[in-house]
Amino acid sequence: MKPERVARIREVLDRRQPDLTIITDRVSKPHNISAIIRSCDAFAVPECHVVWPDEDFQTYRRRAAGSQHWVRVNKHPSTAEGIAHLKERGFRILAAHLSASAQPYDQLDFTQPTAFLMGAELEGVSNEAAELADGHVIVPMQGMVESLNVSVVAALLLSEACRQRRQAGFFDQPRLADADYQRLFFEACYP
Amino acid sequence: MKPERVARIREVLDRRQPDLTIITDRVSKPHNISAIIRSCDAFAVPECHVVWPDEDFQTYRRRAAGSQHWVRVNKHPSTAEGIAHLKERGFRILAAHLSASAQPYDQLDFTQPTAFLMGAELEGVSNEAAELADGHVIVPMQGMVESLNVSVVAALLLSEACRQRRQAGFFDQPRLADADYQRLFFEACYP
Ligand SMILES: C[S@@+](CC[C@H](N)C(=O)[O-])C[C@H]1O[C@@H](n2cnc3c(N)ncnc32)[C@H](O)[C@@H]1O
Ligand SMILES: C[S@@+](CC[C@H](N)C(=O)[O-])C[C@H]1O[C@@H](n2cnc3c(N)ncnc32)[C@H](O)[C@@H]1O
Repeated sequence: MKPERVARIREVLDRRQPDLTIITDRVSKPHNISAIIRSCDAFAVPECHVVWPDEDFQTYRRRAAGSQHWVRVNKHPSTAEGIAHLKERGFRILAAHLSASAQPYDQLDFTQPTAFLMGAELEGVSNEAAELADGHVIVPMQGMVESLNVSVVAALLLSEACRQRRQAGFFDQPRLADADYQRLFFEACYP
Repeated sequence: MKPERVARIREVLDRRQPDLTIITDRVSKPHNISAIIRSCDAFAVPECHVVWPDEDFQTYRRRAAGSQHWVRVNKHPSTAEGIAHLKERGFRILAAHLSASAQPYDQLDFTQPTAFLMGAELEGVSNEAAELADGHVIVPMQGMVESLNVSVVAALLLSEACRQRRQAGFFDQPRLADADYQRLFFEACYP
């Protein structure tokens, strides 16, 4: 492997944010999942979460077309289990959900450990998830249409989180735990 | 029509930004076009542009599933014609293009009349468009993957443009020309 490639991998790992993630609540269209995983990679998220009750996750996964190569995708069989897993790991869960209590995304602090929960294309965020979440967040809209595309919202949230974290110096030194850094470095060098 | 509905339509029209738009350069997947049109609506863009050489635009359009109801979609048969049309109307064309001369999107002024040109899913921005554009803009990425989804980038650019325009007071009073305002109001009330 060329030294430039190794340097690039290190640069990427040096910026990864282990305490920033996305969890999708039955988002079902592969192009949306794929776009979300690409955005995770671009916005320094090393690992994301997918709630997908169907057994047939392999097919689902394959259709996401390699975009998950640089982002680990964890599958959870139910919303409750996915959220419990993240809470145990210390994440605050913010559901992207157009509810009365939702706060605009540029008025919340995303430098805390944050998992954004994204709702399904048709059904939106499930009642269960809306209740289990620690809070609700919205991207304010100026138009007539009721909602944005789910992958678009995920990217807007992650990009705001990165903006805040850059300002707070989170990109100035590696934040991955040593063991995770070494494992990811090895996986990237010997795929 | 209920008074609340009329008030809502007026509120939306009061914020529309006639000098902010998107032009897609052969973007071909309906879910991407559809997501882009939804973002235009949400980020106050009254009218967008699509370069699509194929004759069969009706099918293409139908598949965008009603999201174009609140945003006029103008079709252009070639990139050159689309860009010429926008330049004639006073737009500065910024191609979302990962070139050496591209500038980060949060360091450019989007309060000027601005059209963001978006490249195709596989081919990216055509050479022709890259040359005809007044400048190139990028969304900086922190990861390994080479690019973001095209509808994700369009939304990030429009949301930054709205942020700047809100700060500059562009949402404080109507900006549509009177005749356009009346026409859009009529169309919205009697669809
Ligand atoms: C297409 S929307 C679902 C719309 C669904 N009909 C509803 O009422 O919730 C899919 C998901 O995208 C996210 N979303 C869309 N627009 C949003 C916005 N403006 N703010 C926050 N989240 C949004 C939410 O997570 C939502 O569940
Ligand atoms: C999937 S990308 C095209 C990738 C193509 N292989 C290329 O090399 O250009 C589709 C379009 O999304 C936009 N895009 C994607 N990521 C971008 C980024 N980080 N900054 C600016 N534009 C981007 C560009 O308009 C691009 O043409």
